[in-house]
Order: sequence, then structure tokens, then C-alpha cells
Amino acid sequence: MAQQVQAHMMLSLDGFGTGLNQTRERPFGSVDPSQLGRWMFEDADNNRAELTAITNYGAFIMGRNMFAAPGPDVWELEWKGWWGPNPPYHAPVFVLTHYARPAIEMEGGTTFHFVTEGQEVALARAREAAGERDVAVAGGVSTTRHYLNSGAIEQLHLQIAPVIIGAGERLWDGLTAKLDPVGARPTRFATHMDYRVVKA
Amino acid sequence: MAQQVQAHMMLSLDGFGTGLNQTRERPFGSVDPSQLGRWMFEDADNNRAELTAITNYGAFIMGRNMFAAPGPDVWELEWKGWWGPNPPYHAPVFVLTHYARPAIEMEGGTTFHFVTEGQEVALARAREAAGERDVAVAGGVSTTRHYLNSGAIEQLHLQIAPVIIGAGERLWDGLTAKLDPVGARPTRFATHMDYRVVKA
Repeated sequence: MAQQVQAHMMLSLDGFGTGLNQTRERPFGSVDPSQLGRWMFEDADNNRAELTAITNYGAFIMGRNMFAAPGPDVWELEWKGWWGPNPPYHAPVFVLTHYARPAIEMEGGTTFHFVTEGQEVALARAREAAGERDVAVAGGVSTTRHYLNSGAIEQLHLQIAPVIIGAGERLWDGLTAKLDPVGARPTRFATHMDYRVVKA
Repeated sequence: MAQQVQAHMMLSLDGFGTGLNQTRERPFGSVDPSQLGRWMFEDADNNRAELTAITNYGAFIMGRNMFAAPGPDVWELEWKGWWGPNPPYHAPVFVLTHYARPAIEMEGGTTFHFVTEGQEVALARAREAAGERDVAVAGGVSTTRHYLNSGAIEQLHLQIAPVIIGAGERLWDGLTAKLDPVGARPTRFATHMDYRVVKA
């Protein structure tokens, strides 16, 4: 089977992936992360398949704010982001940023590469690095929306947590990709929803 | 089993049940109704259970705009609303409105009652009329949100059509009810999502 690009994202009922005012101490911004992530933190056994799927890729692409807190314009190089010493990716992760920094090799096989040449270059590098495995777009909202609209993504996997956030970045605002429902499964703290992106 | 109040609603991915500029000729406003309703119009056989459930109640409550186009302040009495001579309800339907008009008995057992005394009176009348059967809140968005927030509704059944509308009334804006995911099923043109309302 040909290599695919897939995206995974947790959303609130009102379509937000994070809140406003994301900081180093608050990766989800003004959202209590336990609101969106209870399905993985408190009900992991019943969500094992989806949890495994999220990190089962040959390479990943993420927006800068998925790696570390927004701005200042220069990196605080001593901080290696939100994911801790042994990130869950265990594969190359291409971080979109305007500010170059050297790649960081973490424990467990994750290497963060910082791509300043734009989304298409990041995609090409991730495809190459993944070999015969699939590539995942790992968020955030604007990065996922870009790759959905550009036609790069074949499958979108959502976890819809039954919470209202009310402010932040909404995945649906500006989304032009056409989606076909292909999967859905309720669990205690989130409903899994799977879509295939319709090829133009 | 005790009488329940349940609500059914079709929503876009971005949470809208209708668009703006609803008129007599355009019950869904600026939304092409085929966008939200394809699952019932084009794929009825695969959605038979959900279609049957929507009208399988002892009584219904709906907002005025679910019965007929918004304003003028007086009813055009010769027009009996959007639902045609034989509406799908086959039971009493309590329409919330600020403007009294006599009840209308339609073919097939549907009678539209116009309630000017507010949402709690409409609920009490619908509960009484339904006897031992359940009561349905049949929309629109603000009516459903009111009864969700007031604690009247036990179950919420959504059809999420894979379309973006971008403007109109969003169910989630101002929703304070807490929802537990209890069901989900993908079909070609919509994903069915069922929630139980958490009792405060």
C-alpha cells in the first residue's frame, strides 16, 4: 500500500484544539488539558488502539507550538520542548518554524528537526524519512488545516471531547477540504471520529 | 421506564444547524439543505433506525422557526408552515412563539399548538400530551440549547454532516449542559453521535 499522510487531533465539541494564551507552563493555553485528554489519561485501556495509532508512524510533522511555547523570536535552546526526555514519537519529527535551530536527538529514537523552508519542504522531508511507513501530521490546528486544505492528508482522526472551550483556534474555520465519514466510536471521555479526505 | 425528553438535531462540522437569512422559500437559510440532510434524502435505507427514531415520540416541542419562516410579527394564517399537509410527527407539536394563533390539525395525526406562555409551559404541555411516551425537542438550535441547559433533556442525538457552514446559530455557543458520549456511527453523509446529558 502506498505511503499515506494521516492527521490526528483532539478537539472540543466546538472545534478547538487548544485555548488562547499558550505558555511554557500551559501547553494547552487557557484550556485545562485534562478536559481534552481525559480519554488518554484516565481511560487508556479502552482507547489502546487509537493511542497506539497516534504514534505509529515513520515520521511526524508538527507546528512550532506543538513542540514548545510560542515566541520569543529566539529559541531558549536549553529547553527541549514539552515532550520530555523520551518523547512518544520514536521517529523523526519535523517542526515547522521561522527560526532555525540544530536538530535535537532525544531518547527512544525521536529526533526533532527544525524546518524553516516551509510546509512543502517539511512534508517532503517527512515522506523521505518515513520510508515505506506513513507520515503523521501531529497538529496544531493551523498546521493540520493547512495540510488538509493542500490535499496532502488522506485520513483525519479526531477525538471529540464532550467539552466546550469557547475560544482559541478552531479547526473548521477556513477548512476547505471535503471529508467523508468512515469511522466513529464513543468512549467514556471522547468520541473517535475518522474521516477520509475526498481527493479533488 | 420513566418518560424521557430527547433532542434530535442535524449539525455541520462547525456546529451550525441552519444558516443565516432563513425565509419561507429557504427553511435552512443560506445553507443548501441538501448539505445537512443528504443522509436522510439520499441514504435513507442506511439510516432507517435513526430516521424512525426522530419522529417516534408522543409529543414534540419546536421553536417557531422550525414551524415557519421568521417574522413578520403577525402570522400569515393561510400558510401552515414548512411541513406540508401531512407532517412527519403524527402527534401533538408544541410551537414556541410570541404570537398566539389557533391550533392547526393536520393530516396524519399531527396537531400544531402555539404556546405563548414560554418554554416551561410548552414542556409541561408536551409531557402531558405524550402520556407514557417520550417527548422530543425538535429544534432549532436555540430551543434545543435552552432545554439542554435547563436540564430537561436526557438524551441528545446529533447527525454531524461533513460540511462547513461558517455562519448561523451554533449549538455549542453558550451550551452549559454536560454531555457523556454514548453512541456513534458513521454513515456515508453524516456521523450519528449520541450523548447522555449528565444530571447536575
